[in-house]
Amino acid sequence: MNNQNNTNLIPSPLERVRERLYIVKVGGKIVEEPQSLKQLLADFSKIEGYKVLVHGGGRLATAIAAKLGIESKMVKGRRITDEEMLKVVTMVYGGLVNKQIVAGLQAIGVNALGLTGADMNYMRSEKRPVTDVDYGFVGDVKEVNADLLADLILKGVVPVLAPLTHDKAGNLLNTNADTIAGEAAKALAKHFEVTLIYCFEKKGVLMNEDDGESVIPSLTPELFQQYVTEEIIQGGMIPKLENSFEALNAGVKQVVITRADQIHTENGTKISL
Amino acid sequence: MNNQNNTNLIPSPLERVRERLYIVKVGGKIVEEPQSLKQLLADFSKIEGYKVLVHGGGRLATAIAAKLGIESKMVKGRRITDEEMLKVVTMVYGGLVNKQIVAGLQAIGVNALGLTGADMNYMRSEKRPVTDVDYGFVGDVKEVNADLLADLILKGVVPVLAPLTHDKAGNLLNTNADTIAGEAAKALAKHFEVTLIYCFEKKGVLMNEDDGESVIPSLTPELFQQYVTEEIIQGGMIPKLENSFEALNAGVKQVVITRADQIHTENGTKISL
Repeated sequence: MNNQNNTNLIPSPLERVRERLYIVKVGGKIVEEPQSLKQLLADFSKIEGYKVLVHGGGRLATAIAAKLGIESKMVKGRRITDEEMLKVVTMVYGGLVNKQIVAGLQAIGVNALGLTGADMNYMRSEKRPVTDVDYGFVGDVKEVNADLLADLILKGVVPVLAPLTHDKAGNLLNTNADTIAGEAAKALAKHFEVTLIYCFEKKGVLMNEDDGESVIPSLTPELFQQYVTEEIIQGGMIPKLENSFEALNAGVKQVVITRADQIHTENGTKISL
Repeated sequence: MNNQNNTNLIPSPLERVRERLYIVKVGGKIVEEPQSLKQLLADFSKIEGYKVLVHGGGRLATAIAAKLGIESKMVKGRRITDEEMLKVVTMVYGGLVNKQIVAGLQAIGVNALGLTGADMNYMRSEKRPVTDVDYGFVGDVKEVNADLLADLILKGVVPVLAPLTHDKAGNLLNTNADTIAGEAAKALAKHFEVTLIYCFEKKGVLMNEDDGESVIPSLTPELFQQYVTEEIIQGGMIPKLENSFEALNAGVKQVVITRADQIHTENGTKISL
């Protein structure tokens, strides 16, 4: 992979400068409220150059399921997706949330295109095997076809990815939005210098949980190990950062953990190898 | 426009042979039932070459709205789309129906891509002005941007168009699927030799309403006028055919009116200038 910094050289035709691509993942809470969504889309539109938005929508799915008389079952914070709940998340993630984001971005001049994994077969998954828990119609990602996506991005299209994949056997599958963002980032790293931005309720990874301003500006694998040993980094942040390092090892250039209102700035915790 | 039949000539680079494109519009009834949908997708997949599918979904929208406690109001057979109903059609047309079709086509090797008019801003509309009736969030089509769509089609992608457009000011708008099909056909006629296929409950336009087999094989403007004068063609079929001639006058090569199970055959009424 061409990871050279060519910015000071005139590239030969065989040595094309890789363009930067920002992949931003936002949770459901921000995209479900009209006011916070509007602010998010305005901030997202300020990111210069090529970009992708990945969204959740779980709270709205729960609310609409309840109105339809369908109970939301969760195990360890993960949704159990039975046949009726699959219809709800297909409607809410693939329809309502995704298309409202697309229309909102178009209104501010961003040429958005809403996608599930089934669209152009860009992300294929397999139904999660039943072990002690049967998660139902939940997909584990197996294959990402990023070539058509990369083509469209280079033409100025901004993909908006819903947390749904398919098994290429006719079934849509519910898939965690963090996973969609990570897998898309790894596949698009063949075509771009990818920065993967995870939005989080805090301004970044904190040195001190009680001080929201104590953002660790950058993390490497060595520093991460040191902070884990010193118990500065603990709990749910550990797997999140382990996933970030996995993305970096698979070719993603940088992972940023930041707050949604900071995505267009240089703030947050920057993670690289 | 280059309408020559170049098939026996080696085209010069400036005289590219125009490829054929089939645009098939199916109503809600067929795509809402798993069994009839499966058959439709199998038949659609048998159409050779470039193709587009346009779908409805009104009955399912009505059913899901009812479950959510939202009443469907119709005037002259047209849905009144208030704010709550717009959310329902965005979920049902843009999410549930569209993505199930896309996943179903992917399962049989058709590289489908589900779109609303907001996606890649391919179809912009304006909210219908309030006259004696306020249709609410219903869009009249104003602009079709078919270039990116044509690019994707030439790469083997099969667009699946939901009956939703947007106003490029952040609002999705409910738009009749026949209109979507006709407007997409006219815009894509700049790039392809377009055949527009409207599915209908009968095998075609009939000589005798009581004889389902009495299909008129072909219609020209002259023959249409003659049959209208002779009262062979009457009622709701007249505006449907007038719309077909309008599409032909705007560059569409042929319009076919046929039954859904005949779309991959040469059957039905073929309308041309």
